[in-house]
Amino acid sequence: MNSTASTDELPSSTAPLAGVRVVEVSSFVAAPLCGMTLAALGADVIRIDPIGGAADYKRWPLTGDGESIYWANLNKGKRSFAADFRDPNAHKLIRDLIIDAGIVVTNAAGRAWLDYDELAAIRPDLIHVQVLGRADGTGAVDYTVNAAAGFPQVTGPENLDGPVNHVLPAWDVACGLYAALSVASAVYRREITGAGTKIVLPLEDVAFATVGNLGYIAEAQLGLTGRGRVGNAVYGTYGADFAASDGARFMIVALTPRHFRDLTELTGTTAAVAAVEAALGADFRDEGERYKHRAVLNGLFAPWFGTRTGAEVEAALDGTSILHERYRSFAELAADPRVTGNPMFQELEQPRIGTYSAASTPMSFDGVHPAVRPAPANGDDTADVLVEHLGLTDDEVDALAAAGTVRINEKDRA
Amino acid sequence: MNSTASTDELPSSTAPLAGVRVVEVSSFVAAPLCGMTLAALGADVIRIDPIGGAADYKRWPLTGDGESIYWANLNKGKRSFAADFRDPNAHKLIRDLIIDAGIVVTNAAGRAWLDYDELAAIRPDLIHVQVLGRADGTGAVDYTVNAAAGFPQVTGPENLDGPVNHVLPAWDVACGLYAALSVASAVYRREITGAGTKIVLPLEDVAFATVGNLGYIAEAQLGLTGRGRVGNAVYGTYGADFAASDGARFMIVALTPRHFRDLTELTGTTAAVAAVEAALGADFRDEGERYKHRAVLNGLFAPWFGTRTGAEVEAALDGTSILHERYRSFAELAADPRVTGNPMFQELEQPRIGTYSAASTPMSFDGVHPAVRPAPANGDDTADVLVEHLGLTDDEVDALAAAGTVRINEKDRA
Repeated sequence: MNSTASTDELPSSTAPLAGVRVVEVSSFVAAPLCGMTLAALGADVIRIDPIGGAADYKRWPLTGDGESIYWANLNKGKRSFAADFRDPNAHKLIRDLIIDAGIVVTNAAGRAWLDYDELAAIRPDLIHVQVLGRADGTGAVDYTVNAAAGFPQVTGPENLDGPVNHVLPAWDVACGLYAALSVASAVYRREITGAGTKIVLPLEDVAFATVGNLGYIAEAQLGLTGRGRVGNAVYGTYGADFAASDGARFMIVALTPRHFRDLTELTGTTAAVAAVEAALGADFRDEGERYKHRAVLNGLFAPWFGTRTGAEVEAALDGTSILHERYRSFAELAADPRVTGNPMFQELEQPRIGTYSAASTPMSFDGVHPAVRPAPANGDDTADVLVEHLGLTDDEVDALAAAGTVRINEKDRA
Repeated sequence: MNSTASTDELPSSTAPLAGVRVVEVSSFVAAPLCGMTLAALGADVIRIDPIGGAADYKRWPLTGDGESIYWANLNKGKRSFAADFRDPNAHKLIRDLIIDAGIVVTNAAGRAWLDYDELAAIRPDLIHVQVLGRADGTGAVDYTVNAAAGFPQVTGPENLDGPVNHVLPAWDVACGLYAALSVASAVYRREITGAGTKIVLPLEDVAFATVGNLGYIAEAQLGLTGRGRVGNAVYGTYGADFAASDGARFMIVALTPRHFRDLTELTGTTAAVAAVEAALGADFRDEGERYKHRAVLNGLFAPWFGTRTGAEVEAALDGTSILHERYRSFAELAADPRVTGNPMFQELEQPRIGTYSAASTPMSFDGVHPAVRPAPANGDDTADVLVEHLGLTDDEVDALAAAGTVRINEKDRA
């Protein structure tokens, strides 16, 4: 029997966290991605929002009807509980739900009804994950954190002056995954010892830890020459992008001697590369040397690409060990069999929006991806949650809705 | 008592995965980051490499003595077991270690001695995580996956022709975290039900799932106009970078009406912005409208920044709610109190390299970050692992080393 789980549901292959219940008071990317990932792994995740939605409920991109595609894809598989965040009666209900679930994940700041000490006084084995912008509690988002983290100065064309931001909110994504990992680990610990955990996770520290893990901090502190801007090259190995005759572009990476040998043979440059190698006193079996002399190598390889169409290039590369990929747009990717024929993507009928390929978890479990479930609308599950988890009667639910403390949706009426 | 744990060690606050043992047969970023993160959470992680190291053992950046700073920062806190991967006797030892641990994480491909079916036949509750490049087993690395994922075409200056790669291997980082989450979830499940899991995790699917989760796939499949290249702006809200008079640059994000109001007041442009708003028939309380008219707003705000030094700008911004950050280089970050005074970073004496700030986990547990431990050298723990986990005698260990089947290090001799 699950000693700390909230329900009788047992974990299974594609639902390893079945039985775990999480209350999520969140907005934007990191905390919602955490909750969505836990839901995909079988947890019962209740996202609690103000009536009408939090600040992310209508974030772009929107459909023609004003529904947020952003929100729908970051909140799949959750239940939605909507309450008036200014109403002390709502605070009490939310507190009761957190105590009942035993796990809360939030990026909301400064709300007394989410305070760890107050909640843990009632439920000592609480698992409480607080996502912050910065460790000192000041605000930050992915795009400001990235500016502090050093990457914009080394991203983009070599001859560019000025920073290049990531469009991908990579820190939000990593933060959401660190948060989910924190919950899974803390739940495992509680299962064995019965203890809860207070976890604090600043987005900025996610970025700084990664900068450290990739060696940039040590490199600087040891007084070594740092890594500068190298365009689309890959530091320390051979990587380059090439244009085909019809404008198609390819990213090529030769990480190993075998990749590199295949590349010189494919492009008919084996003799020329050997001659250059000898003349420079270099050894291109060493990836550092390939990196050092990449400009020369780029020049030797480019003509082969430039005199063939993208289709010809791709077909030829596919027959080799060379790591390669054709640059694609999001639209091309969305139509590609690697999405439409990919078992990780499932055709989802998302209410209020339409049907499209929605992502399960990138990992499969015993060969199967967890079933993808739609995102809820604001307040879809308020009534059910109140009845099932807090034992309220239908009349009590109606009274709360009439008072404006919560929002329930008509579909929930018996 | 831990029913499925490998040791008697009980989980604790900063070691929620204590008692869990993981064998890691890995190289590069994703799988090593997975193992390192699990080790940071208290798991006993044994990284198994060829004698002399795998392909990443000497990856740049290197110290003047040829030690890899890259490897040291991606393999903190692990134990190192070194064996001859061509020797069937080594395969048997590795298999025995995996069976003993009950968990293996690998990005190695095509090695029979890592095959799930063979291992699970011996230990049916095995947790086996296979990281791949692509789901079909073909090779891919972060830089090629990113080309397929659409981001290079929308990253970088608006007037640029051609793709802009990420320097940050964001997909490797996310993959490593999804892998760690998979292990933690599977261990939780096994603790309750006794069942193991076979997990497959393609790097490409990590990227494609994220592209889906951020709404790009749905947007394209629903026939909506996609998101194009917008330089350092932030789609759907107000974000921009500005230069101060001394060349310092700042990233500014006004996500909420409050942020935006603070921004117009700070820059003395409240009246001008209101006049523009009225003339355009816009409503800048709506972040989508701020995004739409960002060029005008950028032009109104820029002079305030351009007539002040970076220090003046920073001091003024700090007194507001505006989300902001000064762009820094890695070197500036490494010297900044947000690293040197950050409890997440700990001064680590890394053998063979030196002393520097090394990152613990970005999350703290009950106010504490797990203690950071150095990365091992190739084969540092081979002897201990053989004796402690497989019950070999010292003579048997010596014989294996003499035969070249394993590498042991002199420090291990009693």
